[in-house]
Amino acid sequence: MLGDSTDEYLIAPDPTRSGLTRRVVAQDENGVSRDIQVVEERPLTIFLNGQEIVTAMTIGDYPEYLALGFLKNQGMLTGGDDVTRVDYDDDLETVVVRTDTQTTYEEKLKKKTRTSGCAVGTVFGDMMEGLEGLTLPEAEVRTSWLYALSHKINRTPSLYLDAGAIHGTVLCERDRPLVYMEDVGRHNAVDKIAGWMLSEGVSGSDKILYTTGRLTSEMVIKCAHMGIPVLASRSGFTAWGVDIAQQIGLTLIGRMRGKRFQCLSGDARLTRDADVNSAEDEDRKHRRKGAAP
Amino acid sequence: MLGDSTDEYLIAPDPTRSGLTRRVVAQDENGVSRDIQVVEERPLTIFLNGQEIVTAMTIGDYPEYLALGFLKNQGMLTGGDDVTRVDYDDDLETVVVRTDTQTTYEEKLKKKTRTSGCAVGTVFGDMMEGLEGLTLPEAEVRTSWLYALSHKINRTPSLYLDAGAIHGTVLCERDRPLVYMEDVGRHNAVDKIAGWMLSEGVSGSDKILYTTGRLTSEMVIKCAHMGIPVLASRSGFTAWGVDIAQQIGLTLIGRMRGKRFQCLSGDARLTRDADVNSAEDEDRKHRRKGAAP
Repeated sequence: MLGDSTDEYLIAPDPTRSGLTRRVVAQDENGVSRDIQVVEERPLTIFLNGQEIVTAMTIGDYPEYLALGFLKNQGMLTGGDDVTRVDYDDDLETVVVRTDTQTTYEEKLKKKTRTSGCAVGTVFGDMMEGLEGLTLPEAEVRTSWLYALSHKINRTPSLYLDAGAIHGTVLCERDRPLVYMEDVGRHNAVDKIAGWMLSEGVSGSDKILYTTGRLTSEMVIKCAHMGIPVLASRSGFTAWGVDIAQQIGLTLIGRMRGKRFQCLSGDARLTRDADVNSAEDEDRKHRRKGAAP
Repeated sequence: MLGDSTDEYLIAPDPTRSGLTRRVVAQDENGVSRDIQVVEERPLTIFLNGQEIVTAMTIGDYPEYLALGFLKNQGMLTGGDDVTRVDYDDDLETVVVRTDTQTTYEEKLKKKTRTSGCAVGTVFGDMMEGLEGLTLPEAEVRTSWLYALSHKINRTPSLYLDAGAIHGTVLCERDRPLVYMEDVGRHNAVDKIAGWMLSEGVSGSDKILYTTGRLTSEMVIKCAHMGIPVLASRSGFTAWGVDIAQQIGLTLIGRMRGKRFQCLSGDARLTRDADVNSAEDEDRKHRRKGAAP
């Protein structure tokens, strides 16, 4: 039995890991002092060879994956082959990704886009660059998998359940959650997964990406760059996010809560095999209470 | 009687305004087609004189305020006096802010361009720059005002209530909400308020800033740049956000829902005049359901 354990995961959240949360003192509405567990937020400056690229505000775990994934999703790394070294310096709060070939970042750095993401999202260059010729693979997504994934992910011990104010993104295969990353910025959580995929040589073609955050243009584009044909979220979506998903043929599922969801694009990949009437509604305990807007 | 109307506002959300939302077609869990109202998300490129600064992803209303507020909160404009013109071009999706004096930012950008090849991150320069000598004014905040503000804001017709997936930020004075801005990025909603304040010459010293989003370092810093001594949110907070608020003496209130809240910093400004037992809990209808993470 799989139950509510984290056995299925290759990487699960580790809410007990030191340095990710801290206790702060608050005065409540009655003036009573309370200790509250709060997520950290630290600057991490990402370098590509000798070039400073960006400073990300992050919770601080998996800095190497974050740097690799950010650069990959920006189109600054074409594959994992050219990466020769990744050096993280805790004191300097820097991570340096080294390649043995010339990279194409100079052009991209000229244009900077501030995304609608939380905690300072940035993309460089034309947001749609690299998506023109993209074809996402055919794949099947069963509603029974989606319901099973929601059930498991909602019950996985996480920083969200402990401290709130954080986003989660989970790389999944069929009904199995594989890698669950959390971060103060939802784009960082996705980038950490992209970095893990690049490091491990994992293909996105048979995967589902689940996120707690909104489905904006940025999230859809990142998912496409990762070669993942299915993106699902418990949150809402923007019109441009839907437009892009339709253009590139990505299966986009939003407002996935309990047995309900809305498929905005790529419905052809969906197999509605689950009995909707027997699917459970979310109970109060496991409902995300909008703690990470 | 004030009731649930928008009479008190100088600027209230206008969910009926065309161009801010659009209907998209979705297939639900049963394969039934539905029309869903969804918020727009558009690029807006901000120029300062001849210099392209950033492209923001925004819902698209109040582009002039967004540009002015962004530049002000970045420390690229020192005051409103030097702004001679703001030109918005709907077709080109650009807004150009013109000053008759050389702005310090252009110098900074050139320097950074020479030293590191690009302006760093979406926050240009040191995030804490300009906060060292800052003293936020003494001010009183009554809990009765906070409860009244929550009640009014939650009941104000908004894009959030119509379409979800959007953040709101409200500039308030005592128990009166003055300016309510919404955007797909919560930083944009704050910047639009900063732009309005700059245009109208409104001081932040006697104001309260209310936001639906998390209290991260970025939000605390923006509030401080706007000279507003009190920042309140229904959402959570990060450890660094709390640290900065404590350093600069900003009153930071999080998790403000119904009668409950947590004051993380600057409790001395708070007057607990409301009877907590008589304050209402949030009813289900007006609770924000985490639709904008």
